[in-house]
Amino acid sequence: MKKYNKMKLLDGNKVASKIVEDLKQDVENLKKKGVEVCLGIILVGDRKDSETYVRMKKRRCKEIGIKNYDILLSEDVTEEQVLEKVNRMNKDPNIHGILVQLPLPKHINPEKVISSISVEKDVDGFHPENIGNLALKRLYRSSGDKIYPVMVPCTPEGCIELLDRYKIPIEGKEVVILGRSNIVGMPLSLLFLHRNATVTICHSHTQNLKKVTSRADILVVACGRKEMITSEYVKENAAVIDVGIHSVEDETRKRGYRITGDVHFNFVKSKCSYLTPVPGGVGPMTIAMLLTHVVQLASIHS
Amino acid sequence: MKKYNKMKLLDGNKVASKIVEDLKQDVENLKKKGVEVCLGIILVGDRKDSETYVRMKKRRCKEIGIKNYDILLSEDVTEEQVLEKVNRMNKDPNIHGILVQLPLPKHINPEKVISSISVEKDVDGFHPENIGNLALKRLYRSSGDKIYPVMVPCTPEGCIELLDRYKIPIEGKEVVILGRSNIVGMPLSLLFLHRNATVTICHSHTQNLKKVTSRADILVVACGRKEMITSEYVKENAAVIDVGIHSVEDETRKRGYRITGDVHFNFVKSKCSYLTPVPGGVGPMTIAMLLTHVVQLASIHS
Repeated sequence: MKKYNKMKLLDGNKVASKIVEDLKQDVENLKKKGVEVCLGIILVGDRKDSETYVRMKKRRCKEIGIKNYDILLSEDVTEEQVLEKVNRMNKDPNIHGILVQLPLPKHINPEKVISSISVEKDVDGFHPENIGNLALKRLYRSSGDKIYPVMVPCTPEGCIELLDRYKIPIEGKEVVILGRSNIVGMPLSLLFLHRNATVTICHSHTQNLKKVTSRADILVVACGRKEMITSEYVKENAAVIDVGIHSVEDETRKRGYRITGDVHFNFVKSKCSYLTPVPGGVGPMTIAMLLTHVVQLASIHS
Repeated sequence: MKKYNKMKLLDGNKVASKIVEDLKQDVENLKKKGVEVCLGIILVGDRKDSETYVRMKKRRCKEIGIKNYDILLSEDVTEEQVLEKVNRMNKDPNIHGILVQLPLPKHINPEKVISSISVEKDVDGFHPENIGNLALKRLYRSSGDKIYPVMVPCTPEGCIELLDRYKIPIEGKEVVILGRSNIVGMPLSLLFLHRNATVTICHSHTQNLKKVTSRADILVVACGRKEMITSEYVKENAAVIDVGIHSVEDETRKRGYRITGDVHFNFVKSKCSYLTPVPGGVGPMTIAMLLTHVVQLASIHS
């Protein structure tokens, strides 16, 4: 493991690879039982970043034997057409999880589309009922004669899993989350609360932000602002999780850019005890959680 | 208004009476349109506290012309029988809101019962889908051709309303909530977050609790421990909301007991700028919000 002074890197690539490797065995076992694990993906439009994310997810699926059923729709598709595709996937017993890549084009209401995904196939955990069950700390829900695990959004779940794999204690710790989005900050605050942390959420309206983030034993940064977090925001020996991902022009690199996060890595690395790199921190964990969800949902049908 | 040094009482009775008075007019207007506002209440068993709460709710309903349809079930009723009653109320177009008084006897799963209430009639806002919509900051949801307001749990909503009526600013303030229950602390943290406060939730696992609560510009105490909060927990000039309610033996009183909260009123009153009394603080606000919900839901059918 690479060391910067006393700081340990939280190697998301390594942990995610281990998780995905274990899933491979599960997928094979399900196949023997006659269940071919399948993730349905709907991608609308041709945003470069969305295409990249979908490609990465599909590559990982392929590696471990999860089939994909993907539907590519052009930018000018109607909301009704998207809903119709979701509905077909809802009804298809061979598809175990459904992922609609966000963001959607502006003329399509994402809330409506996400809410139309069957709660039983909501691998992203964005459906209001899944979010509600998460908030209420319900781990399972029943539907018909089956018991389903409540799906939790992948990025927050990946952050917790990464801390757990490095045996970083959470209970009783002061956790500060910078950012309150529906896909990261908000659900992550609930997960930390369920793990008995003292949780603070801060955001653009927070006063004395540095003072607030400096209380954190565990600081999670998901504010979407490139390299905003420097050492003054970080308590000595904190564990810092960087959820951000940005592409920055860099002429010294062959490809002309580099990838960075919401944390200014070089300014923070010597002050904290643990830090996620970007890339290779939270990103791969998100995908590992997604695949875990697909396998969990497929297992119910075995 | 009563004054203790510089402290102002947050008079829940007064504010709630104003709200309820305004609702009376709405109820009359609905009646003219042919809608008789009706709240269905299911009470299981004979807990004294539950009976008191239901009686208070019904009294307020009667005051403003909301009809009640109540079902009293004995302690030994089966879960199935409770579900059947809920289901009948779900289907009854003359019942606009359904309240199942908690707690239920141990042999009945409250999650199952609450989830069985139609989302469109969930006046308490405890249904997972309503909680999910709250977490996702969705104020409305559509069902069929109608738009429904998302129901928010009454006690948290009452706390915010009380602060608003006294024009106590929330945005950018440090809010600390002690207690993380599904009916108060958790949903309240989401409401404060939506109002752009910096929100910390603490609980029995929080370390240095006094230090954490002393950061609060607004401190909400919902930990269910009688008179636990003394002045060392409170920042100078904070606004303090006491959600607790306890009955304490007191021989100096005629009836032999007095009602108190989670806050030690006499120890805190001279340190904070605002404080809710118990009784007469959050309690009446909870009922006012409940009645507001019933009227909102009935209005949809006018």
